[in-house]
Amino acid sequence: MPDILMGVGKAGLKESGAPDLLVVLLPYPCVSSFLFTDNYFKAGSVIYSEGIAKGRDRFRAFVINSGNANCGTGEEGITHAKMMAERVAQNLDLKPEEVLVFSTGIIGRPLPIDRVLGAIDQACSIMEPLDLERASEVISTTDRFPKFDFLKRGSLEVFGFAKGAGMIAPSMATMLAFVFTNADLDYEILRDIHKRVADRTFNSITVDGCESTNDSFGLISLGEVKVDPKEVEEGVLEVSETLAKRIVEDGEGATKIIKVTVKRATLEMKAREIARTIANSLLVKTAVYGRDPNWGRIAAAVGSTEFPIDPFSMKIYVGKHLLYDGRPHPRAEKLAKRYLEEEKEIEITVDLGEGRNSWTYYSSDLGYEYIKLNAEYHT
Amino acid sequence: MPDILMGVGKAGLKESGAPDLLVVLLPYPCVSSFLFTDNYFKAGSVIYSEGIAKGRDRFRAFVINSGNANCGTGEEGITHAKMMAERVAQNLDLKPEEVLVFSTGIIGRPLPIDRVLGAIDQACSIMEPLDLERASEVISTTDRFPKFDFLKRGSLEVFGFAKGAGMIAPSMATMLAFVFTNADLDYEILRDIHKRVADRTFNSITVDGCESTNDSFGLISLGEVKVDPKEVEEGVLEVSETLAKRIVEDGEGATKIIKVTVKRATLEMKAREIARTIANSLLVKTAVYGRDPNWGRIAAAVGSTEFPIDPFSMKIYVGKHLLYDGRPHPRAEKLAKRYLEEEKEIEITVDLGEGRNSWTYYSSDLGYEYIKLNAEYHT
Repeated sequence: MPDILMGVGKAGLKESGAPDLLVVLLPYPCVSSFLFTDNYFKAGSVIYSEGIAKGRDRFRAFVINSGNANCGTGEEGITHAKMMAERVAQNLDLKPEEVLVFSTGIIGRPLPIDRVLGAIDQACSIMEPLDLERASEVISTTDRFPKFDFLKRGSLEVFGFAKGAGMIAPSMATMLAFVFTNADLDYEILRDIHKRVADRTFNSITVDGCESTNDSFGLISLGEVKVDPKEVEEGVLEVSETLAKRIVEDGEGATKIIKVTVKRATLEMKAREIARTIANSLLVKTAVYGRDPNWGRIAAAVGSTEFPIDPFSMKIYVGKHLLYDGRPHPRAEKLAKRYLEEEKEIEITVDLGEGRNSWTYYSSDLGYEYIKLNAEYHT
Repeated sequence: MPDILMGVGKAGLKESGAPDLLVVLLPYPCVSSFLFTDNYFKAGSVIYSEGIAKGRDRFRAFVINSGNANCGTGEEGITHAKMMAERVAQNLDLKPEEVLVFSTGIIGRPLPIDRVLGAIDQACSIMEPLDLERASEVISTTDRFPKFDFLKRGSLEVFGFAKGAGMIAPSMATMLAFVFTNADLDYEILRDIHKRVADRTFNSITVDGCESTNDSFGLISLGEVKVDPKEVEEGVLEVSETLAKRIVEDGEGATKIIKVTVKRATLEMKAREIARTIANSLLVKTAVYGRDPNWGRIAAAVGSTEFPIDPFSMKIYVGKHLLYDGRPHPRAEKLAKRYLEEEKEIEITVDLGEGRNSWTYYSSDLGYEYIKLNAEYHT
């Protein structure tokens, strides 16, 4: 596989003084699909890149700064994103429209653009092969560990890196992810795979239900090998799921991953909405933190969406333990409590017993550390 | 005004052993409107009372137990509610269908019905004039203080009592409220007033966005005096707003009340949805707890609903301090921080600058105490 290159710079955007600027260079114009946050309060970098990506399906380079979201910064924020793309293009002999710009970090502080442009020069001066772990580290903000994954299956390769910890919610809140495959795919097929995978992975995770202003997920085809698109989709799904789960695991202050599955629903959107509501329930999240098999809070969340449910036919499991099936099973609660104490990944399953559709959401528990991080995090 | 009577009993449903059963007796059949939770996972008591209230608009008595929600308890829960109504009727010489039943407390534990029936006998044996403060105390669960209010304006009287602290969200999650007026109103007029007031008060407060299984709000006309319905509505709104604010103030672990107003929206539902989203944002609630004028989190919440907003024309105020109007105002942040430190009720105002509709939501901040209460609260 031809090398993807990366360069690293320091613009002094992180309090720690760690590297905060990453340039990624593709070996040639690669078919790429990008999905951006649905938030209407978009960062300047998102407004700029979304505009560029509307008219193009091949790109050469990405520049990502962390520590400053370039958001809420008025027209200047869009100008700054454009200047970043131009500077990368100038350094690497590309056209500016072949470069996309991403930012993550604090909202409402103007980018110190001179320092950012200097860091771009620095990054472009030493380009080395892409190191997934290092790339994740450079773009991280409150992350406790880097997120990356690599998969090889026959001739197919899929790999990627991501950042994200707090503010994770559907629509990819404050997370950036870049997934690459060596498979050769047309843009339309790549785009379809991309959207389906995003729905089942990054759009099905939540830490605090808050949707961010900067989130972006890219899927890039290097066009090297011919592989059945179904196999490619499976590979992309696997890598994306791993990255998404790593983000939940790093949820601010999380001690447990919660896997919420709603099954046997009449509609897929019903399964999804109920799974989302359980996954976002503060009462469920604090109960898991307290190792309390409080299925009543799960039941209350199930009943609170716009989709009618029959309380007398549904079943609630924590792990394998059936806690409710129209009536409570108090004796199973002791076993469920032990399960909550011992396992790192907690499975909550709701069986609606009415249809054939299911959906899984990943969430995390909510404890003191979340409050500490979010009450004391700047501005 | 003729006496409304109350009786108090103990069924041993609270760990503290405090009184947990209240019977309220109206002097004659009174025109009454009831609104119940939208949650589909309804308590047995709600299923029972909602069924009774569908066919009637006059009632004589209410029985309320606290400490046990009679929810998730299968068909038996509905039977138990019916038995409670019958026992009250028997004691007070009423028809069972003149009595409504309400429960609040833990989910999924069968009511110890013999003890509850005994407590009803006890309550009915000594009936005294309604004491709003005492009534609120008896029906309380995790409440730190009782909620009641009384208003007299000319010949009009409006008064009420309520309970509720955690799990407060639109659709009146885990809260019970009973508001009375001496005004004489037809059922249809009373019902319209009731719905409008509920929307602007109990349905516009939130502590954790979770919707409960037991919530109910009653409005009862004693039919004593003729007053212009507009004046009655104002009075009912005032008393209900006071009760609703007291509930937010008692939000589990709250140190501040947050009043979120979205103004100059094109649509009322847009103002309401955006206000709701800000009021429910964990990031906003933890920022207020941390006394941090982090307007970026407010902006992100504003942008995250399904309603498009223009990030370059909206304005964000914390107190009177303009923090954003298309661009940030960093110098105002110091003043806003002092405001957050000093005031008990924090006003967040978003001016969309596009229309004439506004909506106000009340919320509370979110701190360590919330986690403590919810991670360590039973089951």
